[in-house]
Amino acid sequence: MYKINENYLKLPGSYLFSNIGKKVTAYKAANPDKDVISLGIGDVTQPLAPAVIEALHSAVDEMADAATFHGYAPDLGYEFLRSAIRDNDYRERGVDIALDEIFISDGAKSDSGNIGDIFAVDNKIAVCDPVYPVYVDTNAMAGRTGDYIADEERWSNVIYMPCTKETNFAPELPKETPDIIYLCFPNNPTGSTITKDQLQEWVDYANKVGAVIIYDAAYEAYISEENVPHTIYECDGAKTCAIELRSFSKNAGFTGTRLGFTVIPKELKSNGVMLNSLWARRHGTKFNGAPYIIQRAGEAVYSEAGKAQTKQQVAYYMNNAKTIIEGLKSAGYTVSGGVNAPYVWLETPDGMSSWDFFDYLLTKANIVGTPGSGFGPSGEGYFRLTAFGTYENTLKAIDRIKAL
Amino acid sequence: MYKINENYLKLPGSYLFSNIGKKVTAYKAANPDKDVISLGIGDVTQPLAPAVIEALHSAVDEMADAATFHGYAPDLGYEFLRSAIRDNDYRERGVDIALDEIFISDGAKSDSGNIGDIFAVDNKIAVCDPVYPVYVDTNAMAGRTGDYIADEERWSNVIYMPCTKETNFAPELPKETPDIIYLCFPNNPTGSTITKDQLQEWVDYANKVGAVIIYDAAYEAYISEENVPHTIYECDGAKTCAIELRSFSKNAGFTGTRLGFTVIPKELKSNGVMLNSLWARRHGTKFNGAPYIIQRAGEAVYSEAGKAQTKQQVAYYMNNAKTIIEGLKSAGYTVSGGVNAPYVWLETPDGMSSWDFFDYLLTKANIVGTPGSGFGPSGEGYFRLTAFGTYENTLKAIDRIKAL
Repeated sequence: MYKINENYLKLPGSYLFSNIGKKVTAYKAANPDKDVISLGIGDVTQPLAPAVIEALHSAVDEMADAATFHGYAPDLGYEFLRSAIRDNDYRERGVDIALDEIFISDGAKSDSGNIGDIFAVDNKIAVCDPVYPVYVDTNAMAGRTGDYIADEERWSNVIYMPCTKETNFAPELPKETPDIIYLCFPNNPTGSTITKDQLQEWVDYANKVGAVIIYDAAYEAYISEENVPHTIYECDGAKTCAIELRSFSKNAGFTGTRLGFTVIPKELKSNGVMLNSLWARRHGTKFNGAPYIIQRAGEAVYSEAGKAQTKQQVAYYMNNAKTIIEGLKSAGYTVSGGVNAPYVWLETPDGMSSWDFFDYLLTKANIVGTPGSGFGPSGEGYFRLTAFGTYENTLKAIDRIKAL
Repeated sequence: MYKINENYLKLPGSYLFSNIGKKVTAYKAANPDKDVISLGIGDVTQPLAPAVIEALHSAVDEMADAATFHGYAPDLGYEFLRSAIRDNDYRERGVDIALDEIFISDGAKSDSGNIGDIFAVDNKIAVCDPVYPVYVDTNAMAGRTGDYIADEERWSNVIYMPCTKETNFAPELPKETPDIIYLCFPNNPTGSTITKDQLQEWVDYANKVGAVIIYDAAYEAYISEENVPHTIYECDGAKTCAIELRSFSKNAGFTGTRLGFTVIPKELKSNGVMLNSLWARRHGTKFNGAPYIIQRAGEAVYSEAGKAQTKQQVAYYMNNAKTIIEGLKSAGYTVSGGVNAPYVWLETPDGMSSWDFFDYLLTKANIVGTPGSGFGPSGEGYFRLTAFGTYENTLKAIDRIKAL
């Protein structure tokens, strides 16, 4: 008699954004006349850049002709894309990453879930709290997180690193030593980030205690301040302790186009075994690459036109962030984030719970946000708004909040 | 100190097709003047059908306009595609599958590797021998296959079901009861298939012993004979024991375009837990959907024009298969397959080992095929040729083999 993976049964409720989706769908069905604005899930609204569209059309035409048709992609992804990544995301920042240290994927969500495959079950993870739920949920599925303590909304075998206003929304080195540390800067959901010196402390710590850092840099394109690292490999020693995840979702609007990559330096070893080789084996065995036409679209993001156009998109969203921050502040809210990240993190008013505030905003202002507690226990009393709406909707939403 | 997944270290060598690729690359580098023809990896050569190209261009244009732009896809995939699948692949064959029993993915390779996530580690798998290596390798990565016995080229904790000429290349019900049974019909690599009555026996057996069948129907479009099932759900009781994997790679040439789907009926339960729910949870947590434009391309495969055009592609490849079979037979080879599948399975001449025959064909005729032993111990002494080349190359390759 076959047996299921019982770890799945320990998961509380469903994935956060599925839950929100169901609540919103129900509200809309009951109130078809309401104009509901979503500043919730972090999905982009601007269309793909013209350079990307052009590359897509051109690649589609290649697929129409036997002479230029592309079948299975190389295991690690096409070299034209990996070269563009190496040159633009790393070499330009003084970081030397080799082509075979870059693995093209269908997105950072897949990678951040799948990366766990190459680690033993009995590793203890440390996560920021609040945190992107995928890190914790996928480790729970793998049996790495112990039991879920419903009362406390936390797992028994996870090291939570609180990121609240008391810590300036940055994690502190944990008292208990973790094996795997998930860091995401600029941060989802708080929108905060840390300086290069602060990140260097984490790298030094990981190397000292023998931990590996899973560094999610999906929001790197939103960094506006100096001295904020764009890649963890700007820090000395990061190659012996860190895996970096990157995405095209937010810097180029690929949420529905799907492209990302993972960097695993060959210096990263456990008892002489290169994690790069393990991931290469997983990649070659369980995945058949991102579509050729999408990899060409990714390449176009790094063209001169592509860079200029996607920079404009980022600026558009960051203007929304500014609008949200200023509007909320003038309405008396306490806010953070939104400077190096497309997320604004606010304290719920009058001690409301995060979900109560979700319901309040949805029903009174027809605005969808994300309850901070959905990202972890220390997110309780906070709420996330994203800058990924249209400017018009963002303005309208802020006006409605001011009018409440 | 973090620990790696030690199961990876048990894997022998690298993935079969990576190995072949390295051998071929080395041979070409040493012999740049040789015209090497690949009838090896099973990659298609015909361009995408015009209806698919048209759908891609149209979807790309949608992505260029904020009013028609698509961000994150619905968790299970777009309904337009799931409806087309339900209607064409199932309803047309008298099988009733609900929309929320269909999960769109980036391909059957990913699905056949990832499906293991929802099962406990201590399930015993049964596989055909020879078999598509991904089933075994991904279970080895999960720790389900025991130890690798190098001398015997087999895993200690896997039930191998020999498929040789003695069994007419079909598996027989195993003596030891498995928990998870992998079946692939039409078969990769042997090109054989079984009748609906034979498949019904497997369904009855699985229901009786409490096993789950992972049914890979990636080559369904190549079925030419009556009484060969196109989906396992044509069999009575399959919904309580079977998961079906499907692909767009071979029926529509999507090897580099990436699209597939998995069907998990809600009747499939373990102690009351629906496997459908577990997979939905995995899908929503570890995956962000296939690209919108690719899902539109998949929809076009089911349009009237798309169906006619992809049918022609399949006919083109099956004409290649016929050419290979007739050529090899006239050269004195013993061959099977190639009637309901794009794979021809031949016995190596003079008792040569599969890899010796690989080297022989590569160096003497500059033809790349796949050694049968790469698919499992019972594949030793066999060799796979695919019908996915161009007609011209297929003819040329057969002429070279005849001339040996």
